[in-house]
Amino acid sequence: MSSLAAPLVDLYGPIRDELAEAQRVFDAELVSDFPFVNEWCARIRSYRGKMMRPAMLLLSGNASGELTPDHPTLAAVVEMVHTATLVHDDVLDDADERRREPTIRCSDGNVTAVLLGDYLISHAFHLCSGLDSQYVSRRVGATTNTVCEGELLQNRESGNDGLSEARYLEIIERKTGALTALACELGARQAGADDRVVEAMAAYGLAVGAAFQIVDDVLDIVGDRREVGKTLGLDLALGKPTLATIHALASAGMTAQSALRAVVRGEGACDVEQLRGWLASTGSVEYALSVATDQVNHAIRQLEVLPPSDARSSLAALAEFIVHRRY
Amino acid sequence: MSSLAAPLVDLYGPIRDELAEAQRVFDAELVSDFPFVNEWCARIRSYRGKMMRPAMLLLSGNASGELTPDHPTLAAVVEMVHTATLVHDDVLDDADERRREPTIRCSDGNVTAVLLGDYLISHAFHLCSGLDSQYVSRRVGATTNTVCEGELLQNRESGNDGLSEARYLEIIERKTGALTALACELGARQAGADDRVVEAMAAYGLAVGAAFQIVDDVLDIVGDRREVGKTLGLDLALGKPTLATIHALASAGMTAQSALRAVVRGEGACDVEQLRGWLASTGSVEYALSVATDQVNHAIRQLEVLPPSDARSSLAALAEFIVHRRY
Repeated sequence: MSSLAAPLVDLYGPIRDELAEAQRVFDAELVSDFPFVNEWCARIRSYRGKMMRPAMLLLSGNASGELTPDHPTLAAVVEMVHTATLVHDDVLDDADERRREPTIRCSDGNVTAVLLGDYLISHAFHLCSGLDSQYVSRRVGATTNTVCEGELLQNRESGNDGLSEARYLEIIERKTGALTALACELGARQAGADDRVVEAMAAYGLAVGAAFQIVDDVLDIVGDRREVGKTLGLDLALGKPTLATIHALASAGMTAQSALRAVVRGEGACDVEQLRGWLASTGSVEYALSVATDQVNHAIRQLEVLPPSDARSSLAALAEFIVHRRY
Repeated sequence: MSSLAAPLVDLYGPIRDELAEAQRVFDAELVSDFPFVNEWCARIRSYRGKMMRPAMLLLSGNASGELTPDHPTLAAVVEMVHTATLVHDDVLDDADERRREPTIRCSDGNVTAVLLGDYLISHAFHLCSGLDSQYVSRRVGATTNTVCEGELLQNRESGNDGLSEARYLEIIERKTGALTALACELGARQAGADDRVVEAMAAYGLAVGAAFQIVDDVLDIVGDRREVGKTLGLDLALGKPTLATIHALASAGMTAQSALRAVVRGEGACDVEQLRGWLASTGSVEYALSVATDQVNHAIRQLEVLPPSDARSSLAALAEFIVHRRY
């Protein structure tokens, strides 16, 4: 936990021990007979950032019932799925830096990164198939299906300067929201929560995931590389319209609009400073953050089904943190 | 089944209906809400070649007990895992052609191929997690862990001109043998076979898989591109030593040896004609095929635990086919 930022250490207080246990389960699952594989997995551990998904799973369980010995395993599974997507995303995006470290694809090449992502996703399924019930495996498989469709859809829509806000939201709900929704759903269900609570927690997770992605996309444009700790400006360079650019495409002046369209279509160069200028003139960053705030407020309302507790307060504060973070 | 080569149609006779059902299960699992995903999956179906793994699973079940309604699902799962590895392998190898069609990476780019491979592996896990028992999911997860390690090991050893035959066999048993072993193991176990038979079938599958890979590697050097239907000469171009080149490295004259070493290390150009000449002078292709034949004979001996049946005869003939095939 020592690598976590201070506000998160406090937020994760109610589930500190279980989160540490989830990290141990994660590490133990990845042990290989081959030392070079273990070295790569040690590198992967440096990707461990906010531990947001396992924390959401454990807090949901704690807030809606009783944590069980299987909870840390479930938390490790969602983190492992997430880590696999990061490793492959860096291949797809040609990204060089993540959490202030060179990405696997940057240091060891795309081939290693593709294989290591496969290794992680395989181990995630292996880990959850060791639980007593097939239910978790089924839900994890269904969710990764959705995540892959979200990624395929995003890839399909790259270069589309007419992407609608609704389609953008569909993409991020699939590629990011589905897994955070699953984390909260599984955490609550495993804790013995009733269906109404499980559904509310899944809705909380979906909205928090969407808000998280909207802010991630905003930071890709206006973030400070040292604070964010990863390669920025990738979305536009890859022709991926995000919420702020979609807004600017609809509201900027004719000159800015046609320049922006050309960049999205891959027909023009991408200059982040110029982009920031256009987005400032149209209030597009503020607009994107207001949509993220709406999502967070929607998420927090879901928590009303829960009795008051430290874990419930942490879930609310975590949702707030999502929109105000700068990394 | 119409796309299968004539000898395979005969060999698969005892399990014709179940194999057709496995194809239907495979196709039904991959149906997406997004038409463009369905189009890619239709392309994937053209990769359907020998259907060797599902056939081995079904023949193992038929030869060692009774086929059940779950057998076609198990067969679809192993085929889907295999297809996922093909799609990613084409990315890793920069391959342009497979089964006489352009590869996904060639026609739609590496990003689509990485994501589509992820989509397939996710659906493979989703499909097997729908079965009653968690056992299959656990075995599939453990096997894909091994397959990924085999691929990582192979990647790690590329460029190693001192690769031993033992290490080569370890790589191919992991990357190819593990999944064919699983197919036969699951087929027999699901059919109610006792442990001794299940173990024998797994040993059969492991040896057939190893033989298949040895022959695949030989065809990469001496095959006819039109017959094999995929990009050839890739192993040496990528510095991957295979059984024939390992043999030649140990037995060729000094000039040929040092030229070959340079090619493996990526320090020299790769000329397939020249390579064929070296391998001819050292009898290295014959050597590799003799090792494959030993594996096939070992596989066939495992079948002695089974009572005589058409399916058992097919398993023996399939193993023989593996070494004599030219595609």
